[in-house]
Amino acid sequence: MFFTSDNGGPAAPEILAAVVAANTGNAMPYGNDPVMDIVRDQIRTLFEAPDAAVYLVGTGTAANSLALASMVQPWQTIYCHRLSHIQEDECGAPEFYSGGAKLTLLDGDDAKISPDSFQNAIDATGRVGVHNVQKGALSITTASELGGVYTLNEIRTLCDIAKSNDIPVHMDGARFANALVSLGCSPAEMTWKSGVETLSLGGTKNGLMGVEAVVLFNPKRAWEFELRRKRGGHLFSKHRYFSAQMNAYFDNGLWLELAQKANKAAQRLKAGLRQTEGATILHPVDANTVFASWPRKGHIAAVNSGAAYYHWPKTHPMEGPPDESFAARLVCNWATTDTEIDQFVKAVSQGIDL
Amino acid sequence: MFFTSDNGGPAAPEILAAVVAANTGNAMPYGNDPVMDIVRDQIRTLFEAPDAAVYLVGTGTAANSLALASMVQPWQTIYCHRLSHIQEDECGAPEFYSGGAKLTLLDGDDAKISPDSFQNAIDATGRVGVHNVQKGALSITTASELGGVYTLNEIRTLCDIAKSNDIPVHMDGARFANALVSLGCSPAEMTWKSGVETLSLGGTKNGLMGVEAVVLFNPKRAWEFELRRKRGGHLFSKHRYFSAQMNAYFDNGLWLELAQKANKAAQRLKAGLRQTEGATILHPVDANTVFASWPRKGHIAAVNSGAAYYHWPKTHPMEGPPDESFAARLVCNWATTDTEIDQFVKAVSQGIDL
Amino acid sequence: MFFTSDNGGPAAPEILAAVVAANTGNAMPYGNDPVMDIVRDQIRTLFEAPDAAVYLVGTGTAANSLALASMVQPWQTIYCHRLSHIQEDECGAPEFYSGGAKLTLLDGDDAKISPDSFQNAIDATGRVGVHNVQKGALSITTASELGGVYTLNEIRTLCDIAKSNDIPVHMDGARFANALVSLGCSPAEMTWKSGVETLSLGGTKNGLMGVEAVVLFNPKRAWEFELRRKRGGHLFSKHRYFSAQMNAYFDNGLWLELAQKANKAAQRLKAGLRQTEGATILHPVDANTVFASWPRKGHIAAVNSGAAYYHWPKTHPMEGPPDESFAARLVCNWATTDTEIDQFVKAVSQGIDL
Amino acid sequence: MFFTSDNGGPAAPEILAAVVAANTGNAMPYGNDPVMDIVRDQIRTLFEAPDAAVYLVGTGTAANSLALASMVQPWQTIYCHRLSHIQEDECGAPEFYSGGAKLTLLDGDDAKISPDSFQNAIDATGRVGVHNVQKGALSITTASELGGVYTLNEIRTLCDIAKSNDIPVHMDGARFANALVSLGCSPAEMTWKSGVETLSLGGTKNGLMGVEAVVLFNPKRAWEFELRRKRGGHLFSKHRYFSAQMNAYFDNGLWLELAQKANKAAQRLKAGLRQTEGATILHPVDANTVFASWPRKGHIAAVNSGAAYYHWPKTHPMEGPPDESFAARLVCNWATTDTEIDQFVKAVSQGIDL
Repeated sequence: MFFTSDNGGPAAPEILAAVVAANTGNAMPYGNDPVMDIVRDQIRTLFEAPDAAVYLVGTGTAANSLALASMVQPWQTIYCHRLSHIQEDECGAPEFYSGGAKLTLLDGDDAKISPDSFQNAIDATGRVGVHNVQKGALSITTASELGGVYTLNEIRTLCDIAKSNDIPVHMDGARFANALVSLGCSPAEMTWKSGVETLSLGGTKNGLMGVEAVVLFNPKRAWEFELRRKRGGHLFSKHRYFSAQMNAYFDNGLWLELAQKANKAAQRLKAGLRQTEGATILHPVDANTVFASWPRKGHIAAVNSGAAYYHWPKTHPMEGPPDESFAARLVCNWATTDTEIDQFVKAVSQGIDL
Repeated sequence: MFFTSDNGGPAAPEILAAVVAANTGNAMPYGNDPVMDIVRDQIRTLFEAPDAAVYLVGTGTAANSLALASMVQPWQTIYCHRLSHIQEDECGAPEFYSGGAKLTLLDGDDAKISPDSFQNAIDATGRVGVHNVQKGALSITTASELGGVYTLNEIRTLCDIAKSNDIPVHMDGARFANALVSLGCSPAEMTWKSGVETLSLGGTKNGLMGVEAVVLFNPKRAWEFELRRKRGGHLFSKHRYFSAQMNAYFDNGLWLELAQKANKAAQRLKAGLRQTEGATILHPVDANTVFASWPRKGHIAAVNSGAAYYHWPKTHPMEGPPDESFAARLVCNWATTDTEIDQFVKAVSQGIDL
Repeated sequence: MFFTSDNGGPAAPEILAAVVAANTGNAMPYGNDPVMDIVRDQIRTLFEAPDAAVYLVGTGTAANSLALASMVQPWQTIYCHRLSHIQEDECGAPEFYSGGAKLTLLDGDDAKISPDSFQNAIDATGRVGVHNVQKGALSITTASELGGVYTLNEIRTLCDIAKSNDIPVHMDGARFANALVSLGCSPAEMTWKSGVETLSLGGTKNGLMGVEAVVLFNPKRAWEFELRRKRGGHLFSKHRYFSAQMNAYFDNGLWLELAQKANKAAQRLKAGLRQTEGATILHPVDANTVFASWPRKGHIAAVNSGAAYYHWPKTHPMEGPPDESFAARLVCNWATTDTEIDQFVKAVSQGIDL
Repeated sequence: MFFTSDNGGPAAPEILAAVVAANTGNAMPYGNDPVMDIVRDQIRTLFEAPDAAVYLVGTGTAANSLALASMVQPWQTIYCHRLSHIQEDECGAPEFYSGGAKLTLLDGDDAKISPDSFQNAIDATGRVGVHNVQKGALSITTASELGGVYTLNEIRTLCDIAKSNDIPVHMDGARFANALVSLGCSPAEMTWKSGVETLSLGGTKNGLMGVEAVVLFNPKRAWEFELRRKRGGHLFSKHRYFSAQMNAYFDNGLWLELAQKANKAAQRLKAGLRQTEGATILHPVDANTVFASWPRKGHIAAVNSGAAYYHWPKTHPMEGPPDESFAARLVCNWATTDTEIDQFVKAVSQGIDL
């Protein structure tokens, strides 16, 4: 009954097999291994983007920060949702990598940016010229930190506003595959065809051992990105193990298959809680995360049964009985089983009934 | 009829005389001139702070940024009002000087931070440990950007909250003298006795040619401050002209006299507008700034008569007729004359009556 | 015949097995997995340093930069050898992580810093007070970039000079194990007992898939290190795979065994080249790297036989016939076989004889 | 007998008069005063550069750092002389403003960069691609820190090498006027016509109260420069006093007249010391600085007579008798009198004869 985070799950067997297979003989380091050429082609093909620059790094924070630093100047601002990972969970990494850019916090339901909030923030930027920070980039996260997935229309609307203001768009796709299978569209539609310029394409939360891709649909600052990656200590000499994982990830649609499993688990969990008297689903369950609340007794029972999950707003994993205002953030991953979901729902339900 | 800003006014004659007098022979550069010793003593005596470290720089942005950088780490956040100068008008200088610290924006009337807003922000900081930026410093501005002056009680309340959370307090006193004469208390009461650790002590807006002091009531990071000042390019070789100005500023209470003139001018302006039918005073006039609104015709008339002032929210100085939502920010300085105030009020009044 | 770098070799089978074993079920992320507790204990025990803070990161550049950033201020300088990895091969990462510290370049044979060079540089630092960058940290690399290993006396001499000047000492131990087995002393003797405060303890070049430890013998800035690591994007959520590798690395002395293999390979290579007429060994072969020169014909033959290695001074791997001034940098790793060494020497030798 | 530095001298009377005259009524702040328009035209005309962007700041360190930051990226290196002010005397300001660029130190007599040293450094830059810092800008100082002045041919040779390598050239002209009157060429010849892209045009050391211009002959990054200036806290609200000084500086050739006075003083000093038995002139006296050595007794006598000057290599001003290895750095300014020169030479001479 592990719902703490999708980064706590294991790597998929296909991924592990690829790592083992990669461990043969010597290989040129730093991304000069031949498998990286294949990965680049896979991503370009999947995204219908033959000119895209593709790079691998080890963490989502690195992917986001390096991507954003390559899109803004230090005296500019990054527009993002108030609850976004780059604002809330990266200890200021975007500020560090960008040389001190500001983050302008936007609002919107389900941690998705509302167009009005974005437009108002733009209007308020740089009103007194050189005295103000300037317009930088927009960063949107999908699936969002509250489990929402932007519709294609929502993405396009934000990107159109951005484009009208010469603001490049970054997508934090730590859960890109979960959002993609949720929408059922093509990767290109979700990104550059809608106006996204740079993508953090997550793997870590979806069955990899710690690999993320960054895709620059506009490769004009690709060399700068490479230098920033190296300078940030994110160019891995034993890159072959990164390449191998990403290669396996895209082979035979594994990435979609894993995401579908996680999303389905979340749907099962949502359905179970919905039928639980006293439990309330707090946000749309568009991807692999469920936010819900229920009476304290249910939490005590769940935790006593061995369930692990976070309070929301986030604090350390629940230890001991929470107070009444407690809400639960329940994240499923590709390996979450029907059994643990059902056990969990049962524990909650029985606890409430006590 | 110049109400654009107090930084547009001339230097006081005593200041200019001091600069002229300082231009005799050679002097050791970089603050090693003997007059700087006198200035240090003047400030220590006025603030009843014999151990305070005292430094001079050329701009308020430099004073604030260097002060704050010496109080926070790059991975911390600076709590400040949403409308504060450090957030709105310094092009990200605090981020630059601090190595990328975040600014957490607080609310409160008249651009003064409310204790609740501060407490809530503290409670939301660092909840997930290493993943979050950490608690840094509090920065309060008095007189505030909307012309308000914190009472001693208000300062103490914020400083007490800060102290309970190990958060050092910075005061942006670009208009310190205006606030001081408004409160009628001692400089020590307004600062370290209430819990302020570091002060940006403005001179530029109050009759100097471009000099600000930074006072570190806690000198433990004084040497660091000196290195930051030099590294930022803010250690002036011809420092004697800075010293001379600050020396004259504190001689015979000149600083208070100049501030009183500016504050009185604002009171006269406020009184005049209050008697003007159709005009509304928008914020308390605690110091030398008046925020007011009136019908469009009044603005047209004022501008046509040669008045200069800024729209609020700030944009470039008014050119041509503003729209109905227009509000005016009218800043008086030590040299503002009764005549120009009365002329201005008359122009507005007559315009409205047309 | 792969001598390009020790980072091009495969992971050791024990390491791979540990990764596979770690992939069971869920695990708390971000270093909160139970195996990390074991790793911490292993390192503390091996280094006789019960209070040391221990962290894992993915690259040597991250280890060095984060370590150094936690030892210096932005206005200080890092003393290092002119040929050191932090100066030559990290694209300015130490400058980036430290917020713009300087690197002061020292001299000494075999890429080992000479005490005189260090002392002279210290004497020249900060002579004019605030106008100069200040004394920061010393960084020594062993095994060095030219294959040298500092004797314990050499380490102590440098550390003593450092200590007399309040300069903390960092050791870049990307090839720590190779140096350790070369000296035959204890890990503690090579580090804190000689005066080293912070250690980059390499694994990547010695059989791991891309994991390095940072050991802070003085843990006073440990929390700062953790924040810097997160902020730099180097805190891995799927940390369990890092922990598993490091755990296996220290189990049963595997790390020493692997290093001994690499060092022995280098000795065999050196011996072979020494017996090759026309070949010259250029630096002492203290660890796993051999620098040698021989006539052009020998290079052509070696490359034609499939050998891979770098020119020195470093450029891209040799393609086509080099010029006469060519020298070779030949790096052995734990998996280098006697056969490939012998083949290589034979190819060179036959080429020269043509 | 003040030879400590040209920044210790007084402001010229014409400059002071201009400041006094500027103190009339109100003025738009931040460089929007009308006199700044005149200054811009003066500099464009004098430099035959109608498109140049022109900005004023308060210190030479600010001028150099902001100029360089606008020319390089954080992952690039700035080529400069080992003894240059940006390396030796700015506490790392170029690193700070550039976001952590490196400085590559070059050699050459009289603190002038030799073409060979520059070419060799370029050849050694970026040899291993992304692992290395990249080629950034060249910074040359004239008059140099050892009193030398680059000939036009020397400037052109360095600029030609730079141009062949796509390296933009910065000139630190803290003593530009001294160099200009020494060469007797046009400002344009000394700068853009020879290949200089950005100029720090000093005023502070030549009779101003603390004002420097930055001239961007290539204005493509002018807006960036403005943002960097503001963000660095170097945009002065009371800019009118800067404008007034610079305006007077260029009026009627005052800048050249002041520089000629300082240079002539240095020639007189050199001549006097040359005739002093036991004294040796150490570097060519091309501008306003003399480096010389003589026996200890002469220093004791000079200091006892009230002379002030620095040891070289620089330490704090001489206090008490120096050791035998002592050399003197004697800087003349526009206000240095024949009398004090003659007195000084006499004191030295008599001291030696004792």
